[in-house]
Amino acid sequence: MTEFDPTTHPHRRLNPLTNQHILVSPHRTKRPWLGQIEAAQPSDLPKYDPGCYLCPGNTRAGGKKNDAYESTMVFENDYSAVLPPPGPIAPPSLHPLLTVEPVQGGCDVVCFHPRHDLSLPTLSLPDVEKIIETWMQVYLKRGKETGIQYVQIFENKGAIMGCSNPHPHSQVWSLSTVPTLPANELASLKRYASSTSVASKAPKGPHGHPCLLCEYVHYEFFMPENEGRVVIKNDHWVALVPWWAYWPFEVMVLPYQRHISSLCHLNVAEKTSFADIMSRVTKRYDNLFSCSFAYAMGIHQRPVPPREEGGTLLEDEDDVAHLHVHFEPPLLRSASVRKFCAGFEVMAEHQRDLTPEQAAQRLRDCSEVHYLMRGEGAVLHSQ
Amino acid sequence: MTEFDPTTHPHRRLNPLTNQHILVSPHRTKRPWLGQIEAAQPSDLPKYDPGCYLCPGNTRAGGKKNDAYESTMVFENDYSAVLPPPGPIAPPSLHPLLTVEPVQGGCDVVCFHPRHDLSLPTLSLPDVEKIIETWMQVYLKRGKETGIQYVQIFENKGAIMGCSNPHPHSQVWSLSTVPTLPANELASLKRYASSTSVASKAPKGPHGHPCLLCEYVHYEFFMPENEGRVVIKNDHWVALVPWWAYWPFEVMVLPYQRHISSLCHLNVAEKTSFADIMSRVTKRYDNLFSCSFAYAMGIHQRPVPPREEGGTLLEDEDDVAHLHVHFEPPLLRSASVRKFCAGFEVMAEHQRDLTPEQAAQRLRDCSEVHYLMRGEGAVLHSQ
Ligand SMILES: [Zn+2]
Ligand SMILES: [Zn+2]
Repeated sequence: MTEFDPTTHPHRRLNPLTNQHILVSPHRTKRPWLGQIEAAQPSDLPKYDPGCYLCPGNTRAGGKKNDAYESTMVFENDYSAVLPPPGPIAPPSLHPLLTVEPVQGGCDVVCFHPRHDLSLPTLSLPDVEKIIETWMQVYLKRGKETGIQYVQIFENKGAIMGCSNPHPHSQVWSLSTVPTLPANELASLKRYASSTSVASKAPKGPHGHPCLLCEYVHYEFFMPENEGRVVIKNDHWVALVPWWAYWPFEVMVLPYQRHISSLCHLNVAEKTSFADIMSRVTKRYDNLFSCSFAYAMGIHQRPVPPREEGGTLLEDEDDVAHLHVHFEPPLLRSASVRKFCAGFEVMAEHQRDLTPEQAAQRLRDCSEVHYLMRGEGAVLHSQ
Repeated sequence: MTEFDPTTHPHRRLNPLTNQHILVSPHRTKRPWLGQIEAAQPSDLPKYDPGCYLCPGNTRAGGKKNDAYESTMVFENDYSAVLPPPGPIAPPSLHPLLTVEPVQGGCDVVCFHPRHDLSLPTLSLPDVEKIIETWMQVYLKRGKETGIQYVQIFENKGAIMGCSNPHPHSQVWSLSTVPTLPANELASLKRYASSTSVASKAPKGPHGHPCLLCEYVHYEFFMPENEGRVVIKNDHWVALVPWWAYWPFEVMVLPYQRHISSLCHLNVAEKTSFADIMSRVTKRYDNLFSCSFAYAMGIHQRPVPPREEGGTLLEDEDDVAHLHVHFEPPLLRSASVRKFCAGFEVMAEHQRDLTPEQAAQRLRDCSEVHYLMRGEGAVLHSQ
């Protein structure tokens, strides 16, 4: 029997948030690296596109006209996946195995900026801060509506993710139910909070209980530099490739100084450094394969904002949530070689070849100067 | 408050096998149908491709030469995701949240037929029976190896699924652990078997306990023809779009006459009619958009075959498994318009627009004469 070597031996890792395993096959990366580094793809998007339904002043599918907006813009999606209340009467179940539950809610679009050609990595820091502020406002507004039990902020970027419009934008879906994945994560956080064997110096969650993500980020934070899975840190936030990462260059961004359960719990300094780390992570992404790096991004936090009393946010059981961002990008080897999720993965278990540690190293090696902003021709910027 | 209408009102359905919900947004299908029916794509694949590593007599990447095989061919994958035992010593856990477990096993390739240009829908019935027989043999052989706890048979078809070689083939991965998804399904089946409130005329599982899938398929089987979710039936099998389907045209194939826990429990008649329904489902798939319909297909059954004593298969707790096939195809509207799994879906919950009932209707409307086998020019067949 040989000693276990995580860079050679097939093994599985557990995602403690979802309780799903990932099969890691690191020996397969010893195959010759077939993927080439694609030539830089200069962005030739116009600053304004008359055919874009998100550009200022243009008319959307539903017939409404966009304002001549100057920073962010929020509107209700013309093809919402859910509809506002009142919903129908819940039907009787046809059979115990055929359950059905009506869902109400709303779907908002949050445009990041009037410029058609920019994105999180190429927007200025004040612009990214403004986006974060807007997410928080929509979260507060929607989360307080009657019957809303969950608010999901997400961005779907790139044609490879099915996003046909490059105009920088995200979506916010508000629902009368807590969806499967965040419900699982919250259940895991709750279980962890009631465990008693945790004795690290990590920050604690509400009532002094241990927090799964406070513990995890604390452990990663104190790994030696240039080892482990941390990509970058700033004063309040860490970006890392989680131990249980599924996508080749999956990243989680989370606060490490204290337990923070939602966007509306952030103080001014934490908000500024949140913008900083989101900008730096996405710059590294774009630089990895010299392309506009496609991803699904989502914010997990308290299902809805806490109640307030006299200007103070009230604590409750949903404060077990620990604010974090998931980046799930499909690219594997170059701007045109993606990972496919098929066969064994959809029938049995998620699988990866490149280890999370190798992915983190490659992201650490990337520059934070955006590839389109280098040298003399570098004029792509919102400032 | 209005009455609930499943073809109009957003709702969620529960998948009782995985305990995950699916958000259904049927009102969105009332948008004008933008997808066109693509022209038939005549298959121009050669019967033999000198550059294909699966064609008879050709040399594979690892340097080995294929036999001049005449029906099916089995060989070990040259780039297996797992390696045969002995594995390394399990390492000490770095932290309770960073668990790691070595995995051993093997990855086999099962070629369906020497002909490069055929596939399940265009192979003859005896050829499909031979494939089923081969799957059973590999399942028996691998499942009896020391340390193997699970055998997954699957097919990954089509470039859109990341499968670069059109030569008809499937894979069988054998593992020293039960993967996440089948482990979840087995847990659901076990829970259901110990529930006491079931009083239908459906077949029962081992020891007379109720079986989730026997109950479900029984319910669907007796829905009025041309309603509900059944696509086709034959003497022993049903193909249906499950109530909780996620992919637009997802299909489950399962036996309905009696509880059958694995391929090696099938009698001769059941095997023949299994080949029949697999052929008919995939013909309908190809005809839906007049193309070679891409999918991930997987067989779920007992993790490994039962022990035998004097020619008799012994019953044990793994017999709660109910043999079934999942087809998970990504196409949505045409041969070139696929569903994307992104944004809200990867961050929160699976979502679909077209209802499972509508999908079943469209598959019922498809012919079982393959679009490439119609009329005079119809020579595409292995017989
Ligand atoms: Zn999360
Ligand atoms: Zn299954």
